[in-house]
Amino acid sequence: MSKSRVGIINVTGYAGVELARLLYQHPEVELTSVTGRSAAGQKLGKVFPHLSCIDLTIETELVEADLVFSAMPHRESAKEVIPLLNRGIKVVDISADFRLKDDAEYLSWYGFTHPAPQLLEQAVYGLTELYRSQVASAQLVANPGCYPTGAILALAPAVKEGLIEPDIIFDSKSGVSGAGRTLSAQSHFSEANEDAAAYALEGHRHLPEIIQELKRIRPEQPPSVTFVPHLIPMTRGILTTGYASLAPGKFAAGKKGGEDIRQLYLDFYKDESFVKVVELPPHTKHTRGNNLCLIHPTIDHRTGNLIVISCIDNLVKGAAGQAIQNMNLMLGLPETTGLEALAVYP
Amino acid sequence: MSKSRVGIINVTGYAGVELARLLYQHPEVELTSVTGRSAAGQKLGKVFPHLSCIDLTIETELVEADLVFSAMPHRESAKEVIPLLNRGIKVVDISADFRLKDDAEYLSWYGFTHPAPQLLEQAVYGLTELYRSQVASAQLVANPGCYPTGAILALAPAVKEGLIEPDIIFDSKSGVSGAGRTLSAQSHFSEANEDAAAYALEGHRHLPEIIQELKRIRPEQPPSVTFVPHLIPMTRGILTTGYASLAPGKFAAGKKGGEDIRQLYLDFYKDESFVKVVELPPHTKHTRGNNLCLIHPTIDHRTGNLIVISCIDNLVKGAAGQAIQNMNLMLGLPETTGLEALAVYP
Amino acid sequence: MSKSRVGIINVTGYAGVELARLLYQHPEVELTSVTGRSAAGQKLGKVFPHLSCIDLTIETELVEADLVFSAMPHRESAKEVIPLLNRGIKVVDISADFRLKDDAEYLSWYGFTHPAPQLLEQAVYGLTELYRSQVASAQLVANPGCYPTGAILALAPAVKEGLIEPDIIFDSKSGVSGAGRTLSAQSHFSEANEDAAAYALEGHRHLPEIIQELKRIRPEQPPSVTFVPHLIPMTRGILTTGYASLAPGKFAAGKKGGEDIRQLYLDFYKDESFVKVVELPPHTKHTRGNNLCLIHPTIDHRTGNLIVISCIDNLVKGAAGQAIQNMNLMLGLPETTGLEALAVYP
Amino acid sequence: MSKSRVGIINVTGYAGVELARLLYQHPEVELTSVTGRSAAGQKLGKVFPHLSCIDLTIETELVEADLVFSAMPHRESAKEVIPLLNRGIKVVDISADFRLKDDAEYLSWYGFTHPAPQLLEQAVYGLTELYRSQVASAQLVANPGCYPTGAILALAPAVKEGLIEPDIIFDSKSGVSGAGRTLSAQSHFSEANEDAAAYALEGHRHLPEIIQELKRIRPEQPPSVTFVPHLIPMTRGILTTGYASLAPGKFAAGKKGGEDIRQLYLDFYKDESFVKVVELPPHTKHTRGNNLCLIHPTIDHRTGNLIVISCIDNLVKGAAGQAIQNMNLMLGLPETTGLEALAVYP
Repeated sequence: MSKSRVGIINVTGYAGVELARLLYQHPEVELTSVTGRSAAGQKLGKVFPHLSCIDLTIETELVEADLVFSAMPHRESAKEVIPLLNRGIKVVDISADFRLKDDAEYLSWYGFTHPAPQLLEQAVYGLTELYRSQVASAQLVANPGCYPTGAILALAPAVKEGLIEPDIIFDSKSGVSGAGRTLSAQSHFSEANEDAAAYALEGHRHLPEIIQELKRIRPEQPPSVTFVPHLIPMTRGILTTGYASLAPGKFAAGKKGGEDIRQLYLDFYKDESFVKVVELPPHTKHTRGNNLCLIHPTIDHRTGNLIVISCIDNLVKGAAGQAIQNMNLMLGLPETTGLEALAVYP
Repeated sequence: MSKSRVGIINVTGYAGVELARLLYQHPEVELTSVTGRSAAGQKLGKVFPHLSCIDLTIETELVEADLVFSAMPHRESAKEVIPLLNRGIKVVDISADFRLKDDAEYLSWYGFTHPAPQLLEQAVYGLTELYRSQVASAQLVANPGCYPTGAILALAPAVKEGLIEPDIIFDSKSGVSGAGRTLSAQSHFSEANEDAAAYALEGHRHLPEIIQELKRIRPEQPPSVTFVPHLIPMTRGILTTGYASLAPGKFAAGKKGGEDIRQLYLDFYKDESFVKVVELPPHTKHTRGNNLCLIHPTIDHRTGNLIVISCIDNLVKGAAGQAIQNMNLMLGLPETTGLEALAVYP
Repeated sequence: MSKSRVGIINVTGYAGVELARLLYQHPEVELTSVTGRSAAGQKLGKVFPHLSCIDLTIETELVEADLVFSAMPHRESAKEVIPLLNRGIKVVDISADFRLKDDAEYLSWYGFTHPAPQLLEQAVYGLTELYRSQVASAQLVANPGCYPTGAILALAPAVKEGLIEPDIIFDSKSGVSGAGRTLSAQSHFSEANEDAAAYALEGHRHLPEIIQELKRIRPEQPPSVTFVPHLIPMTRGILTTGYASLAPGKFAAGKKGGEDIRQLYLDFYKDESFVKVVELPPHTKHTRGNNLCLIHPTIDHRTGNLIVISCIDNLVKGAAGQAIQNMNLMLGLPETTGLEALAVYP
Repeated sequence: MSKSRVGIINVTGYAGVELARLLYQHPEVELTSVTGRSAAGQKLGKVFPHLSCIDLTIETELVEADLVFSAMPHRESAKEVIPLLNRGIKVVDISADFRLKDDAEYLSWYGFTHPAPQLLEQAVYGLTELYRSQVASAQLVANPGCYPTGAILALAPAVKEGLIEPDIIFDSKSGVSGAGRTLSAQSHFSEANEDAAAYALEGHRHLPEIIQELKRIRPEQPPSVTFVPHLIPMTRGILTTGYASLAPGKFAAGKKGGEDIRQLYLDFYKDESFVKVVELPPHTKHTRGNNLCLIHPTIDHRTGNLIVISCIDNLVKGAAGQAIQNMNLMLGLPETTGLEALAVYP
């Protein structure tokens, strides 16, 4: 059987580049076409030397493909993707354009009217662990944001089981690649190195995504979420620390409660290839370059707070890797195909 | 008038080295004696080349001094300090030995009986901004821990005014120098670089210190504190993000509330030289090498949570700088003497 | 056909861990046994979480294997390896024990008498590109040091063709993982971060290895080599800058000379999968996690000096990757098997 | 006596910011005026929070001053500086505009005709250690480039004494702040972090400066210099490794030669406050934030090469600190005034 042909719109950002790296190693699909505006006409390996064994030229228009990843910025992505959908092509959209189900929310966070609100219903939110079967039959998958991936996976079991009160805090620490390949003062080496800072305190665009999904997990108890992202001086990785009060009467105090919560998480994720519930506080380093989400739930016995820590590589499980995980399902391939590489440690 | 003579016990850790650096630049005191076990007998500048213009040998015993800093580890510090106090020497203890007022707490967190519980009452907790007058007349000052310094200063105004509910979360991100100069796997470059991780989830020894001090600020409402420290890949700096629910009826919602809280913080710290309430989320980089604590309070209008971010250099305001700030008061010098250097940016 | 069984002696150093990572992804061999002293008895994935999908316990003794990698320190490695060789097992020794052909040199650089000088003759120096056929039929391969790999590949074409004078300078910049997993002051995060320093100016143990191999390439003109290694604040990667005067009359001055030298390098390495002659100065980042050596030769027209820059990942082409490249040949497998992963950029 | 008034043209680059930081701590001058194009009209402390205790607004035009630093880019700097000189104001120019004595060289390296070649003769090359008396009486000082400062100081004693052959190699490793505050791909965090690369192999603009000055030190033996700069992932610091063959008959071989060369360097720099000849290979970390140049000369006894390593902070001794050192002389102040701060280690 011939391999499926896949394409990448806007290969020149970090998510696009990471898609190309991972797809090159994928045994069941062939990367046949990549586009990019700034570097159009150049060989992919000229712009990105680590990709020089991929013999493709960056084009302005995609050639025919069975499935397309869009790594365009929001708004522009929707425009690119709509004609592809109309031609019956499967799409994994890495932008934010199809993540929010409510176009009024979209308008309020992104500042313009959604160009195709009729697609929001059919678009599947591609947090694979939560929407596996819908992804498998989807034509359009909205790949989750990097922060929401780590945050939602961290608290999904607790929310699902009604273990916690609705007030939730997510304190996230992200590597600088999350800010993208576009030059900016906050990503300038001498500014970002040896520095830590919070940002987007007035509200980050990933917040409505987190809220939407936690609500869908437990509609009867809409969460109230405070989310503060921070930039820390590393290239890849997001560590999210989630805090919530345990609902009364759910867990015994003391050591027993900690073991129970751990067991509940282990059960929740027991069939997952890419989510590992770990015994010790996880390190982002142990996810570098691969598709894992490491999760460590624990209870602060002094306060009765649930604390859950998750680690992902923002460019893999937080972007390109999860996109390929979704692609695998959409193409009927085993979910882990092409994503088996271990983390590059140290 | 002759300069006061000061000494450092255990100059060879990072806090001790930083004391030496800052004291060299101090116009009103003279560093006359330094001790250290491992490097005893060597010239200070041989072990620490950046200190080579300080012409001192690392001794096993201090020579006479008017004021002594102890940078020994806890337990050992108390033993060193007690005979000095008996001889009437003023002491700033950088270890944890005299921070907790309750020797039962000390026993439970440090695992042994306090060797001089009778001193706990007289020891002044050296968070200068809160105990300025007591520090000025103290013989023994317990210099605060690095995390408590950033955490307490971040929430002191809100706690004092009763603006928040007692449930408080501190999520701290520390540079690796906070783990000290002693070799360890977590401080090994290839492990710590390009990594982020939480630690001490079962309870960090700085927690009782934070609780004690927030309680003293507002005894009628004892706080319930969750504190999670994280190591991030930089050498210096601690960024602490504090979260608490606003008490009902205290602040108007919306923009007005944010301005009010900011004004309240500005008023609280208006006479402080080393605490700056800043308009934008602060960067640890802007405190590198100096004694500032930068604080940014804000309200999450969606949830009614107060979020306060503080940044310090863990080795300066979090250790050696604050110790000198206290020394200045104890010696009757202007509080800022020798601490005026600006942050080394970028 | 059943897969070959391979084992790793001393899996707990960075070279050993990297071997395990790469072997897990190798389709034609099975990692069946790993040893390690400090962590014996523990699950591999407990000590190294990123390896947790490898279901092996760290043993004190290897079980039977077809080929064994030894990642022991020098001296101890020879002792472990000799009995294996006697039992007919193939060995790739990552230590320095079998690299030097002259046991007097070994004595002078390593400070003790070689335990098995009779094996030095049969041991093949595993710089695959230079000794491919010998590696293929070897029982014992001495895997090159990290610095020699980058240095020798950088100048091999020029030396081979007699293009340069014998005085050669190698200025190398290494990531800190090259100093190993053993704790040391020079690898302590707060010391190594934001720092650069040279070391081993009195002579690094990789120097005799470089000299030996350049001599073997062109015995009629023994080189005189100055080699200065530097530690720079990154985890992985070695960039080596090689300098030598062009022999008179070999190259036209000006642009033409530069093109000629580049063509000569392209020809020399034209059949190599893991050596890429690149047009622009290479970045270590473009080798992160993979087995490539990137080489950029250029001529300084003002001085007539040849400058050649090489980049490798010290743990891959400089250690574990090259060891597997050698293993592939020794087992009759295609040389690139299991080593196709692209660099993890950014 | 009133303090001298000094101004900074283009305070918004890293050299300008560093000047402001250091001048704030200077007891004998007052920073009275700063200009900058992009940020004109803003408070200095708004743009650079670490400077917020300097109460100045960034202007488009300087107010009257006794001495002015120009931190403009080359070409534009000359234009700004010429009218000031005409009004009798003293100038330290941090740009490259007045460093090269030969305007034909200037044309060939900078690509345009020098706007004021008549000033090149009177401009003093401000490598203070070499031109102290000329600096003291100069109206216009051309502050050296960062690379030339480290390179020239490293080899000046050897060149002066005729100890080495004319073929010299400088291999420099620079922190990323050397590339400035202007955004660029090479300074983008995710690109520069965990990376090392050489650049400007076709010829860096600091090369003619190095050659000019080594020639002036020993006109009878013009050097032939190869200079290769590298970017390494740290913010501040330049480590330069200089290589040259010892001239025959100058030094005994063996340990004695090493001691002799060290003594010669100690003698050469014995009266210098900011150049330290050190016994062990120096670390850039030991110069962070201060004006020192650490130099370590050694002989490779195997090859007879002299190896000299120098470390500076590129923004201090390599720019702003040296500029203030020159200013001190020009204003008749002790050379070290305001520059006594120790390095910020770790």
